[in-house]
Amino acid sequence: MAEHTVRFESAHAPVRVPTGTLMIEAARLAGVDIQQPCGGQGRCGRCAVQVTEGSVRRRSTLRLSTEDIAAGYALACQSVIEGDCAITIPPQQKIERLLTTDRMIGEVTAPPGYSTAAQPMRRVALTLTPPDMQDQTDDWSRLQTALRQKTGIGTFQVSLTLLRRIGAVLRAGDWVATALIETDTWDCPNGPARLVDLLPGHVPSDAPLWGVAIDIGTTTVTLWLVDLLNGAVQAQVADYNGQIARGEDVISRIIYADRKGGSEELRELVLKTINSLLATACKRVQAEPADVVKATVAGNSTMIHLLLGIPAQSIRLSPFVTAMNQVPTLQAGEAGLNIHPEATVDCLPGVASYVGADISAGVLSSGLDDAESMTLFVDVGTNGETVLGTREWQVTCACSAGPAFEGAGVLHGMRATQGAIEDVWINSDTFEPTWRVIGGVAPRGVCGSGLIALLGELFLTGVIDRSGNVKLTLPTPRVRRGEHGPEYVIAWGHETAEGRDIVLTRVDIDNLLRAKAAIYAGFSVLAEKMGMPLEATEQVLIGGSFGKYINVEKAVLIGLLPDMPWERFRFLGNTAVRGAYLALLDRAARTRIADIASRMTYIELSADNSFYEAFTSALFLPHTDIERFPTVQAVMGK
Amino acid sequence: MAEHTVRFESAHAPVRVPTGTLMIEAARLAGVDIQQPCGGQGRCGRCAVQVTEGSVRRRSTLRLSTEDIAAGYALACQSVIEGDCAITIPPQQKIERLLTTDRMIGEVTAPPGYSTAAQPMRRVALTLTPPDMQDQTDDWSRLQTALRQKTGIGTFQVSLTLLRRIGAVLRAGDWVATALIETDTWDCPNGPARLVDLLPGHVPSDAPLWGVAIDIGTTTVTLWLVDLLNGAVQAQVADYNGQIARGEDVISRIIYADRKGGSEELRELVLKTINSLLATACKRVQAEPADVVKATVAGNSTMIHLLLGIPAQSIRLSPFVTAMNQVPTLQAGEAGLNIHPEATVDCLPGVASYVGADISAGVLSSGLDDAESMTLFVDVGTNGETVLGTREWQVTCACSAGPAFEGAGVLHGMRATQGAIEDVWINSDTFEPTWRVIGGVAPRGVCGSGLIALLGELFLTGVIDRSGNVKLTLPTPRVRRGEHGPEYVIAWGHETAEGRDIVLTRVDIDNLLRAKAAIYAGFSVLAEKMGMPLEATEQVLIGGSFGKYINVEKAVLIGLLPDMPWERFRFLGNTAVRGAYLALLDRAARTRIADIASRMTYIELSADNSFYEAFTSALFLPHTDIERFPTVQAVMGK
Repeated sequence: MAEHTVRFESAHAPVRVPTGTLMIEAARLAGVDIQQPCGGQGRCGRCAVQVTEGSVRRRSTLRLSTEDIAAGYALACQSVIEGDCAITIPPQQKIERLLTTDRMIGEVTAPPGYSTAAQPMRRVALTLTPPDMQDQTDDWSRLQTALRQKTGIGTFQVSLTLLRRIGAVLRAGDWVATALIETDTWDCPNGPARLVDLLPGHVPSDAPLWGVAIDIGTTTVTLWLVDLLNGAVQAQVADYNGQIARGEDVISRIIYADRKGGSEELRELVLKTINSLLATACKRVQAEPADVVKATVAGNSTMIHLLLGIPAQSIRLSPFVTAMNQVPTLQAGEAGLNIHPEATVDCLPGVASYVGADISAGVLSSGLDDAESMTLFVDVGTNGETVLGTREWQVTCACSAGPAFEGAGVLHGMRATQGAIEDVWINSDTFEPTWRVIGGVAPRGVCGSGLIALLGELFLTGVIDRSGNVKLTLPTPRVRRGEHGPEYVIAWGHETAEGRDIVLTRVDIDNLLRAKAAIYAGFSVLAEKMGMPLEATEQVLIGGSFGKYINVEKAVLIGLLPDMPWERFRFLGNTAVRGAYLALLDRAARTRIADIASRMTYIELSADNSFYEAFTSALFLPHTDIERFPTVQAVMGK
Repeated sequence: MAEHTVRFESAHAPVRVPTGTLMIEAARLAGVDIQQPCGGQGRCGRCAVQVTEGSVRRRSTLRLSTEDIAAGYALACQSVIEGDCAITIPPQQKIERLLTTDRMIGEVTAPPGYSTAAQPMRRVALTLTPPDMQDQTDDWSRLQTALRQKTGIGTFQVSLTLLRRIGAVLRAGDWVATALIETDTWDCPNGPARLVDLLPGHVPSDAPLWGVAIDIGTTTVTLWLVDLLNGAVQAQVADYNGQIARGEDVISRIIYADRKGGSEELRELVLKTINSLLATACKRVQAEPADVVKATVAGNSTMIHLLLGIPAQSIRLSPFVTAMNQVPTLQAGEAGLNIHPEATVDCLPGVASYVGADISAGVLSSGLDDAESMTLFVDVGTNGETVLGTREWQVTCACSAGPAFEGAGVLHGMRATQGAIEDVWINSDTFEPTWRVIGGVAPRGVCGSGLIALLGELFLTGVIDRSGNVKLTLPTPRVRRGEHGPEYVIAWGHETAEGRDIVLTRVDIDNLLRAKAAIYAGFSVLAEKMGMPLEATEQVLIGGSFGKYINVEKAVLIGLLPDMPWERFRFLGNTAVRGAYLALLDRAARTRIADIASRMTYIELSADNSFYEAFTSALFLPHTDIERFPTVQAVMGK
């Protein structure tokens, strides 16, 4: 087959590829990363590149204008190489890759009454009698006898890898050793205990015993490093999921995973994110990742499938089933987590294709499964999952909100870390904003809570109308037509950390409207299905990685949250990682999560039209039916 | 460091090595295999090579004469390269590498009353209801529900590897599938069942379900391929253990394993033997090795340690303890067996450093643990292990007999396969022999039973004296001084398969005397320790890979077996592989072996001098104290 030379402007060397190679594939070979937020389906247009020499065959030109094509633009995921060519990649919307610590949502200490007895993982200090000619007991039996005397447990499982080292460790410590044992696992609650590691000598009894709770979000991965001895969270870190550039939502990721090598690539990307977060968290407490001896993982069903390399296609295709909702207990080595290779990795159980382990964990940590009154729980993330119920029953549904509230898919969006504008007020006369920045530094962008406040203020002050259109006629330079269409300038370049204006564009506003509409539609459909008015809800528990600091007034103003007395709302931060943390500490919590997952009733929204109607109605500010928002009506009527 | 060029005559290219490299290491780099029966300790002299150009530094010259050294001979394991040199490797005593089937020791069918209910491994035919929008149950739960309906078992464990394939298999078979399950394992007798594999469609219910029983002897590896559905042994194969060239006995192997890379090398060698036997056996029944779904392994403690790559040094050094006597249940993938990667590999439990799983298995299959009368069990192999007892109690000891009775360490020795002389008679007037060859073909060598008969006949006819000296003065060309010293010619070149004389040398006779003396010494020490005369033994059960056909009269004549009425002796063939086979079929047999291993009392012979004295006394024909052999005394007195 004929081969052609492809030069990418940003690559250090050209590549040779055969006729018919996808441009995105040629880019990969050249070491050039091109983002594909739609997963390479040719839908989003973000992978557009400019062919400056030679030509390519365009299989699809969706989102490209005739002028674009005339100027040589082509979609990298939809165009194939048919001759020598040179390609320039336009500056792409950058996703914040900076590794940051989540704003501490308060110091986390163990739940009241936490005891290491609730914890299957423990260290046991041993002093053995050395063998002699009168006692030729084998090393492994000798060790088990010593363990039995200390723990009362009769037999232990051990891996071949560890068995190979036992004799040397016992002799290196002169028959004094510290065993790391796991008394039971999720799969075998009454099963044999396991020897996880053996160290020569005695480890000080108060030396931390590290565990890690992980939440894999579609957009954000959060990790808590925990001392299992006292249950205290010693480090909290978070970063964007490395898979984002291969699809912004779960559907795009599943499509990407179905390509040749796609599943392996996505698996490696998320493992890279997790392992680098692990390294950061461990460094902060002066531990080694190999010191981490247990992990629990929450995440939506697609994220769990992709983490484990399990085909996820059936999630996307009717009748929308997962390969599994309950994952067997794994060891870190096979799961690919860079902690102690024999550490247990427990992926928490999910409910259905679109209501995963993050929600089971969230219901536990929010306390909904123990609520006496009618409670609504929503996890505001890339997928907006909603649960309605009490301790007696729970129903749940999910909708795709997109990553806007996590700061992705918004031009100057960012995560809630240092430099993020987290709250905004706009003067209704001058249209001048005031803002608060996390860390009190010059702003770098706007995080989820800031975006909610900003949208609310823009609406309240009339900068945008109910459909989200920017009034360009207002007498302020803050409102203008920019590179991306109409926009509002939140901060001028000289005020910012990076010297460029921070703006909210019309496109951003549309993304935010879609996100809030999807979440509100979830609430209303669920209430409707249960035949009760949404207002009958006595408390609304809100989880999400944007933290605890949403302004309820503004969230109601834009129609993200239903119009109810403010005291009914409680913001809980990342409920998924907190649920994973509780399961990490206590086998009773782990049992409760499984119970929640198996009891919850899932309502499939794709099965009827009610969701789509509710979503369309909610695309306005605050809602098409403003009667649903009496307090907003009152404010706007002033 | 200076480098030198070393040319091996038999290698296709010279190698470059630094000053101080061991010659054996240089040979390995050159791809030249030099046998080291003593494990590289410089004891056996078998690795002697001739330096034809240049010179080497000899750290030891044990077993080399002054003339040898003058002619350039050096021990490859004890000499280091200090300059360019050329090396010739003399023809080495070849160990038969021919892969052969053991003489069938009779067709083996399942023990009476065998039922697959005794067998934890089984196939389950499933027809599932496909998912739809009314039933969005996940694939894994759906599969478990179907399994529960068919088996009554609630939950199953599954590996991540298999979990990745389940969805595709279910859909490929249109929701009709065959599950391979294991209901329990040795480690978890009441633990969760496990899904081992899943195949699309229904496998015919009478298609064989393959298991394999393996005995790893120091010299010989034996493998039985079994249809678990009916318990019938469908193929029996055996070959020399590939580790032989790295040491003839367990001590030499342990020393070799302690070298850099030695343990890995020995592990690979035995795995190569096992996996090639597996391939042969499977080919014979038209199966694939991956169709084999369960394995049990017997072997002495050193063999089990080396198979698993577990350090074995403590076996050799006082106080002689193993790393473990009970091995955890393994999967074939981690054990390195080339069968179904998720097949359970169960290494049977041993008793002590020198009484391993082969003896626990042998006691079971010989029935000693159920014997009403005083019983002696001996496993005639490279290690001569002896057990004395009844169903009430058992004591055991071990001694190193060497591989002579397995045909190794004897110039024209071979295994009991086609072409082996298995019985011999010598005319006391003419000293002409008559022999019987397995398969009725021209002889290629002499197997264990043939060697026993030959030694007995040589003694009976006066060709050798009580010390084993060959009477060179006899009027027959059969007795002569050969290349290796005095020898007796069993077959002339023109009568043999390979056109060369088959002889028994003085060195061979010494090896046979040492082997039989060690075994007899074991009997007598054990009886002495128990304070009973050896003659009080009511039955003698004899296991060993030389098969069923030892001539008892001759075995008593040479003092291998005690002088007792012949009807007290029973030859059982390879009792170790038979025990492994019983454990493969039936969990009750497996439990009984563990029981045997834990109850047996081990007597450490190295702890006192009684064994050495008994051994020295037994180095004569039949024994120093001929009064112990009244029937031999009567025959010889004639």
